[in-house]
Amino acid sequence: MPTVNLVPEDSTDPIVAEVFADIKATKKIDFIPAIWRALATHPQHLQLCWTGLKVIMAPGKLDALTKEIIALAVSATNGCDYCINSHTAAVQKLGLDKEAYGELLAVVGLYNQMNTLADALKIEPDIRPQPY
Amino acid sequence: MPTVNLVPEDSTDPIVAEVFADIKATKKIDFIPAIWRALATHPQHLQLCWTGLKVIMAPGKLDALTKEIIALAVSATNGCDYCINSHTAAVQKLGLDKEAYGELLAVVGLYNQMNTLADALKIEPDIRPQPY
Amino acid sequence: MPTVNLVPEDSTDPIVAEVFADIKATKKIDFIPAIWRALATHPQHLQLCWTGLKVIMAPGKLDALTKEIIALAVSATNGCDYCINSHTAAVQKLGLDKEAYGELLAVVGLYNQMNTLADALKIEPDIRPQPY
Amino acid sequence: MPTVNLVPEDSTDPIVAEVFADIKATKKIDFIPAIWRALATHPQHLQLCWTGLKVIMAPGKLDALTKEIIALAVSATNGCDYCINSHTAAVQKLGLDKEAYGELLAVVGLYNQMNTLADALKIEPDIRPQPY
Amino acid sequence: MPTVNLVPEDSTDPIVAEVFADIKATKKIDFIPAIWRALATHPQHLQLCWTGLKVIMAPGKLDALTKEIIALAVSATNGCDYCINSHTAAVQKLGLDKEAYGELLAVVGLYNQMNTLADALKIEPDIRPQPY
Amino acid sequence: MPTVNLVPEDSTDPIVAEVFADIKATKKIDFIPAIWRALATHPQHLQLCWTGLKVIMAPGKLDALTKEIIALAVSATNGCDYCINSHTAAVQKLGLDKEAYGELLAVVGLYNQMNTLADALKIEPDIRPQPY
Repeated sequence: MPTVNLVPEDSTDPIVAEVFADIKATKKIDFIPAIWRALATHPQHLQLCWTGLKVIMAPGKLDALTKEIIALAVSATNGCDYCINSHTAAVQKLGLDKEAYGELLAVVGLYNQMNTLADALKIEPDIRPQPY
Repeated sequence: MPTVNLVPEDSTDPIVAEVFADIKATKKIDFIPAIWRALATHPQHLQLCWTGLKVIMAPGKLDALTKEIIALAVSATNGCDYCINSHTAAVQKLGLDKEAYGELLAVVGLYNQMNTLADALKIEPDIRPQPY
Repeated sequence: MPTVNLVPEDSTDPIVAEVFADIKATKKIDFIPAIWRALATHPQHLQLCWTGLKVIMAPGKLDALTKEIIALAVSATNGCDYCINSHTAAVQKLGLDKEAYGELLAVVGLYNQMNTLADALKIEPDIRPQPY
Repeated sequence: MPTVNLVPEDSTDPIVAEVFADIKATKKIDFIPAIWRALATHPQHLQLCWTGLKVIMAPGKLDALTKEIIALAVSATNGCDYCINSHTAAVQKLGLDKEAYGELLAVVGLYNQMNTLADALKIEPDIRPQPY
Repeated sequence: MPTVNLVPEDSTDPIVAEVFADIKATKKIDFIPAIWRALATHPQHLQLCWTGLKVIMAPGKLDALTKEIIALAVSATNGCDYCINSHTAAVQKLGLDKEAYGELLAVVGLYNQMNTLADALKIEPDIRPQPY
Repeated sequence: MPTVNLVPEDSTDPIVAEVFADIKATKKIDFIPAIWRALATHPQHLQLCWTGLKVIMAPGKLDALTKEIIALAVSATNGCDYCINSHTAAVQKLGLDKEAYGELLAVVGLYNQMNTLADALKIEPDIRPQPY
């Protein structure tokens, strides 16, 4: 059970109403996902999170699918149930097929293993010629 | 300081020598990164890790750059210093430019934030129509 | 389903009975939360955990609410479902209102984002004049 | 070594210059902490992060010290070296004394322990009467 | 709900069928645990994971119970629900009694606490005479 | 650099002096590891941590080496540099040889991988007959 009462989709709070409308328009969906209805209990925070997400997830140098793949890799590494669900749905919708999805999970699993081994062995970084 | 003595690059252990040669050939590099020299203290584990990594990181449905992007997203989420260094070098080598790198980090940061908020609010998953 | 059978609230084990009575008296509650009934399967560990918690959570330089806020921040960062539930209840009981709760979550989310970015960018600490 | 070249404090990029000036004015400091100089390699992301942080960290229902305490609790739980350094400096500057700092760490340590125990024992949440 | 349709136990995919048969024979069980049925959606990854697990978990210098204890310590630290369940079952089957199980959890809880404190205090490693 | 000034080994604070003497006697060492000198900035917390650790790490149903192996598995999973160092030293001192150490790391790496895969695939627990 959520720790807050989800704000109704037809909230009349002006900030909430504006953000909810923008979520539907931007994501081309006809409902408000639960995370946004929960964040709406603090309208200013809702607005901040949504604005940030909208800017960051807009296709740029990286396309929409690559960004959702990153989101899923992060969510799986953190074991966030809600987020794994929503980003799996997102990559599916953007056309990632079952085989590619399997490859994605394989890479995520592999580096959770390799990260731990590198930490455990206290390996010092190899030389890297130039920072970005 | 590593917890093990790094195995020399010219090790004569047959398993280690074979894996080291394959690492150089596959990655087209002329040295053995420290992680493999450390894992070589247990040759069977070295072989297992390298074999798995070689299969998983080979381009398939996802290309090499996308796989390295996932590796970097995981490593950043876990805060693994060695791995952040090596996968940053890898995406750079594969052509990810500074702007795309900035976008990648922005997505990684965003979902570490959103994952925590979803967990904290104990949001239940929205309905998702069909598993893979 | 818990991995252990929860010890009954009226356990006659002398250590367990003493700790359970102290939990009720200290927390001013009339039931034993499930975590303590589970830990009671190893009475010595129960006693150790309860004693530590009682000392650490007693108001000192930091008041009870601040300590529960910290507990909730840690639990949300770790994504611990049981603990998020109980510490949300605790801050509510101690008077944290909905707006303050929203601010708390906003700070927790923000620093899970910023921590990841600092790790990913491998930033070296700014100079800090004096340790405590 | 950071993965990016830190942007100079006197950058002439208009977005960067504006944010850097605001950081100095808001935080009442005369230098730009390394994290912002690193984020400035992607000016739009810098602006987004700074705007979010400025809003979220402004005193509201929770005062500035409580917010920094939360930031330190999160950073310690995540083991983020850079952030532990900067938030320790921040709580010090805001007047948290050595004893209160010790209490803060004690609570952070305690709940990293208790979170793990609750997860390991797979405890189901106790009933909680009402969400926020 | 899993993100993939679990592959049936009587799958006729040659790789899957071979791995499933080996899982039953090696583990001496008459069903396929859900994790393997899920991984089987990408047969090559299934084979890789199972091969690695079979080699790594075979008794060697460390016996089977010690290896399962380590697996449970890792799973509890990561808060992985499925894995906590299966490794608790495994240590039980291998004879770990309730008191020893309580000791195991106590150590796991303790070091999640101590790890955080060491990170928070930014302690530098004590001298250690010789790497492995 | 630690966030606190390490308390001198010859501290005359009565609680600190008693704990420091007990650390040397119990661990049969002639110096105080840095973590305890740091915790000593808050003597009551030092005492609480040391008392808990002494009880929990004393050989019981699980022997001293198994307990240190668990401590190392936890510390590696959390990537705690200080703790990886000290528990690697501890298992070495208790006789764990290089091959067994390699096996330990292999199991730790494997389950960090498998935990992530189980989380990512949102697998529901297999049936488990009886709790402890």
